[in-house]
Amino acid sequence: MATRLNVGVVGAGRMGRIYAADLAQRIPNARLAAVADKQAAVAESFARDYGVPKWYASHLDLLDDPRVEAVAVISPTSTHREVVIAALNKGQPVFCEKPLSISIAEAEEMLAAVERTGTFFQMGFQRRFDAGYQAAKKKIDAGAIGTPVLIKSTSRDPLPPTREYCDPKSSGGLIIDMGIHDFDITRMFMGDVKSVHAMGGALAYPWMKEIGDIDNAVINMVFGSGALGCIQLSRHAIFGYDIRAEVWGTKGSVQVGYLRETPVLVMTEDGVTHDVVPNFMQRFEKAYLAQMSNFVENVLHGRPPAITCADGVAALRVSVAATVSARENRTVEVREISGASAQATVKN
Amino acid sequence: MATRLNVGVVGAGRMGRIYAADLAQRIPNARLAAVADKQAAVAESFARDYGVPKWYASHLDLLDDPRVEAVAVISPTSTHREVVIAALNKGQPVFCEKPLSISIAEAEEMLAAVERTGTFFQMGFQRRFDAGYQAAKKKIDAGAIGTPVLIKSTSRDPLPPTREYCDPKSSGGLIIDMGIHDFDITRMFMGDVKSVHAMGGALAYPWMKEIGDIDNAVINMVFGSGALGCIQLSRHAIFGYDIRAEVWGTKGSVQVGYLRETPVLVMTEDGVTHDVVPNFMQRFEKAYLAQMSNFVENVLHGRPPAITCADGVAALRVSVAATVSARENRTVEVREISGASAQATVKN
Amino acid sequence: MATRLNVGVVGAGRMGRIYAADLAQRIPNARLAAVADKQAAVAESFARDYGVPKWYASHLDLLDDPRVEAVAVISPTSTHREVVIAALNKGQPVFCEKPLSISIAEAEEMLAAVERTGTFFQMGFQRRFDAGYQAAKKKIDAGAIGTPVLIKSTSRDPLPPTREYCDPKSSGGLIIDMGIHDFDITRMFMGDVKSVHAMGGALAYPWMKEIGDIDNAVINMVFGSGALGCIQLSRHAIFGYDIRAEVWGTKGSVQVGYLRETPVLVMTEDGVTHDVVPNFMQRFEKAYLAQMSNFVENVLHGRPPAITCADGVAALRVSVAATVSARENRTVEVREISGASAQATVKN
Amino acid sequence: MATRLNVGVVGAGRMGRIYAADLAQRIPNARLAAVADKQAAVAESFARDYGVPKWYASHLDLLDDPRVEAVAVISPTSTHREVVIAALNKGQPVFCEKPLSISIAEAEEMLAAVERTGTFFQMGFQRRFDAGYQAAKKKIDAGAIGTPVLIKSTSRDPLPPTREYCDPKSSGGLIIDMGIHDFDITRMFMGDVKSVHAMGGALAYPWMKEIGDIDNAVINMVFGSGALGCIQLSRHAIFGYDIRAEVWGTKGSVQVGYLRETPVLVMTEDGVTHDVVPNFMQRFEKAYLAQMSNFVENVLHGRPPAITCADGVAALRVSVAATVSARENRTVEVREISGASAQATVKN
Repeated sequence: MATRLNVGVVGAGRMGRIYAADLAQRIPNARLAAVADKQAAVAESFARDYGVPKWYASHLDLLDDPRVEAVAVISPTSTHREVVIAALNKGQPVFCEKPLSISIAEAEEMLAAVERTGTFFQMGFQRRFDAGYQAAKKKIDAGAIGTPVLIKSTSRDPLPPTREYCDPKSSGGLIIDMGIHDFDITRMFMGDVKSVHAMGGALAYPWMKEIGDIDNAVINMVFGSGALGCIQLSRHAIFGYDIRAEVWGTKGSVQVGYLRETPVLVMTEDGVTHDVVPNFMQRFEKAYLAQMSNFVENVLHGRPPAITCADGVAALRVSVAATVSARENRTVEVREISGASAQATVKN
Repeated sequence: MATRLNVGVVGAGRMGRIYAADLAQRIPNARLAAVADKQAAVAESFARDYGVPKWYASHLDLLDDPRVEAVAVISPTSTHREVVIAALNKGQPVFCEKPLSISIAEAEEMLAAVERTGTFFQMGFQRRFDAGYQAAKKKIDAGAIGTPVLIKSTSRDPLPPTREYCDPKSSGGLIIDMGIHDFDITRMFMGDVKSVHAMGGALAYPWMKEIGDIDNAVINMVFGSGALGCIQLSRHAIFGYDIRAEVWGTKGSVQVGYLRETPVLVMTEDGVTHDVVPNFMQRFEKAYLAQMSNFVENVLHGRPPAITCADGVAALRVSVAATVSARENRTVEVREISGASAQATVKN
Repeated sequence: MATRLNVGVVGAGRMGRIYAADLAQRIPNARLAAVADKQAAVAESFARDYGVPKWYASHLDLLDDPRVEAVAVISPTSTHREVVIAALNKGQPVFCEKPLSISIAEAEEMLAAVERTGTFFQMGFQRRFDAGYQAAKKKIDAGAIGTPVLIKSTSRDPLPPTREYCDPKSSGGLIIDMGIHDFDITRMFMGDVKSVHAMGGALAYPWMKEIGDIDNAVINMVFGSGALGCIQLSRHAIFGYDIRAEVWGTKGSVQVGYLRETPVLVMTEDGVTHDVVPNFMQRFEKAYLAQMSNFVENVLHGRPPAITCADGVAALRVSVAATVSARENRTVEVREISGASAQATVKN
Repeated sequence: MATRLNVGVVGAGRMGRIYAADLAQRIPNARLAAVADKQAAVAESFARDYGVPKWYASHLDLLDDPRVEAVAVISPTSTHREVVIAALNKGQPVFCEKPLSISIAEAEEMLAAVERTGTFFQMGFQRRFDAGYQAAKKKIDAGAIGTPVLIKSTSRDPLPPTREYCDPKSSGGLIIDMGIHDFDITRMFMGDVKSVHAMGGALAYPWMKEIGDIDNAVINMVFGSGALGCIQLSRHAIFGYDIRAEVWGTKGSVQVGYLRETPVLVMTEDGVTHDVVPNFMQRFEKAYLAQMSNFVENVLHGRPPAITCADGVAALRVSVAATVSARENRTVEVREISGASAQATVKN
């Protein structure tokens, strides 16, 4: 337990506070050195509650703090490019929460900065750190199911985020905002995606249509290997938070998924009932902690990032391709999508 | 238990024998009056084993037998048109095993004959008679999940049929041969299909490619209501027979599926293990019996068919549309597919 | 399918009708030759419904019917001794539903008659023919769990039988009437029982106390091998029918049990719900059929009985020992219990 | 997050280190002020690793440390009496890990000290803080299952502790050492126990017999209300750690239990397999944390203890009664067991 890494957190919103609390209290080889948020009062109250030495209203001040040895960027997606590139230019190791951006052009610019500066950069996709997904990966790598030929991945939120949050201009829309986790995890299991086809609709909430978004989507994929994939996305699981994956190979299958929250069954005249995982934090609490611990370890010990900036760009590229597919009702080749192309953004 | 219906079975292959044995021994208000098979020896030995009064080498002789009051057509798909139309013309109530045909033109011809003759015709899709699918339908009709907005249906065989059976010229290919069950069941839950998109590959068995077929497919659908669907088909579940469906609504979801064969868990140092349903007959034995009983009941009591000829044509039309989509890598509108169109068959 | 065995059924009550219907329609190598019931009208109407050639008001007439080649005794327990001994004396192969008797003296008399006449006798305990219990036995015999050291067995009915049925004078009380299945199945897995200790109470239904019976019991056992056992019995599962067993060995465990009736999960805001097996016939329908088929096969092919009369006596002896233990609040050695002893019956 | 409670931990063995690490890093309103262990080097190295201000070789020195505001006693059971009474006499709020003692006389002496001094004392039984047991309690208290009439509780360790640990002279034997958790949890659900009957054996490990202990036991109980209980204890689950309970009431049942560790299913030709919770720390990590947080909260806010010293004595009394029952093969009334009685200890 010799050295501790002094980490600064940029962004003290819902997710920022979770990562910051983990850094402050639950990661023994890290110290939460400073926190920055444009809403100064938010930064200040958080710093007080958690005994953080310093707080700032600007990320630039945090990057200038000599005690800060690494930065976790948990600010709104629209600010990622600016904060990340500033940190990279200062040589600060960076952790960046998903998605990198909702614009391919911006994402490619960040990737170029990582390559130019040679600074450590780790992409945030916590699902990769979940014990379930990791155990599945291990089983597959050990040959338990032969050659993988088909992957299914589903994400279902219990309820939609706010109308403001969902606005495709800032969120990128359902397929980018929620689907990027599925695109990343399917890449982890199956490699790069060749082409995608998506169908969607505003089926549960009419207001989704008004803001130009959808609340359900089904997406088919062909991977470079020829293997197939299918993804389901939904904003209204109602009964809880439901994240699953199945990988089918020539010799068997691995399924990741876990509905039950408490280990309790109730049996009455109405049948047998159990509760379910209510939301993402109950499901992925340990994965978020493991992800930030992994970032700290990698920086402390000079190890390569667990997830690269290129992974972040690739997952975004598939997300955008699927968004274009849903809009144009056709199969889209992922290689069509680049920062220079007309389809690089989903702004209507 | 007053009257019994005298049923003749045409086709004494694997499935024919199952239906015939049910009629002979397990359906109290039916009698197996006669059996016909082009292989006379097969018909004769079956008749002897089950004490069937008459056997024939030709379906025409069976249709002329004055004791026969209704006909179950379980002969090869390629013979359905001829046998069914002959029976309809004689006014014999008909049960026809799936698929109606692999040709839309043929299927439409049978539908026209049903309409012209006014003879009773019931389509065979045993999955609709499974206790699981029926319980799910009941729950949904009772409003348990609100408005259905997305359906997932999967079919996985443990092993592929023979190379000869798989030949798309006779089977229609994976998407018709296996998928027609999923297209029918999704129609039962969600209504008519508007458009489909399919992707597939010969991923587990290279010989599938040689015969022009695939062994895995993922299929997206939009229903007339705007609701979404996705289907997975596979020929290599290896571990057993895996048939599932999930219907998601605005207020919840219903899942149908059942992996365990015997109610036994084994716990050792290797973990917890249970067996699985090995193949379709273990999974659907009761559904096949219920389906034939229902046919007998409907004929005896003058009730309408549980599944109509038009249902059989509709499921085939979606299957053909998906087959065309996989071949041409584009979204196909189901209304494009008709007997007159160039895309009505999947013969390459 | 050469020869068929002509079976006569004595007793056309609830269980008698089930066995008789199986013999009439579902066991290809048996014929239901005759049915007898003291209530002549019951026997007659059953015979008419199922096309049984002959019906009788007396079991003696049925035993005299020259077409009858074997007898299934499904009449009330109090009549077993008389019917069984009459059949044995005529040399008719006998199947006798559980329990043999509620009196050790009577049971020993039947066993003596079996030994004296050398006539085929098969005891009825359908649980041994359940696919789950059989698969568990096979796993254990194959060494999957090492040496068995502890067994747990539970029986729970959804609701109590009628007050009249429960009367210990005719039923023997909960521990004999219901527990005899558990005592038999634990003997199948673990061998003979050395001593038992039982505790019980009329906890859910006050009227149980009035008739001198209990509605819940917990029973500990030591087997001859030193292994341990525990049994739970209950008359008020409410939510359904719940039959389970677990065998624990030095290397692992096997669990038998199966709550779900239809393969359907419903997920709503209230959690995840599934239905359960409602009652014993849904749970053991196949086992009853398999048991009677096995009896027919054994008689036709001259094989020994699957469960002997001595097994029936042994299970009863343990049941009586446990009943005495519950009454006297002490450990009872099974060898204390014999027809000559004061504790041979549970009549108060 | 105003005030923090300064806690001293006595005992830096396996369990002591777990509680101490939670106090140091995971309980925001506590500070780990000091640690004491008779093995000075152990205390020192722990203090260094976790940045604990003070470490001591004697609990007396720790109790004299003016910064220490409360004490957690996690030292060997044989030292509990001395440490606890010393702390109580100093007016230090005490948390004491289970069991209080293996001697009724000692336990009664501690209870007398709690009553005499009026000092805060909280008994440690982490199972009560498990989300599963808590959810079950809540459901039952809300009337979900009507009146509870039967409880089943099982504990199975994957492997036995060391021969030295198991020695009944220090551990009290299987029924006290392991069963005390089950006796406490059944008391939580059902109230006080009236009488018990136990049967046990050294069935999996012959060396258990040599040291005078057993490795399996089945225990029946009658509660003061007349309700029934049964407990199974085992030292060789092999496949993992298996802790379950079922409470049956007049209107339904609640089951607590949870075998799966990671949410992964593997399906291959060998069937469907999942892993299991490997040992107690994976199963109860959160419960241990919740228990210590609860102690800190109760002391800080002047709330009564969640589990009293009298609860600790009561659970021990039932454990001793069951141990006597197994030895003497008879039903034992719990009220027979007192510090003055010859049966108060299980030393042979």
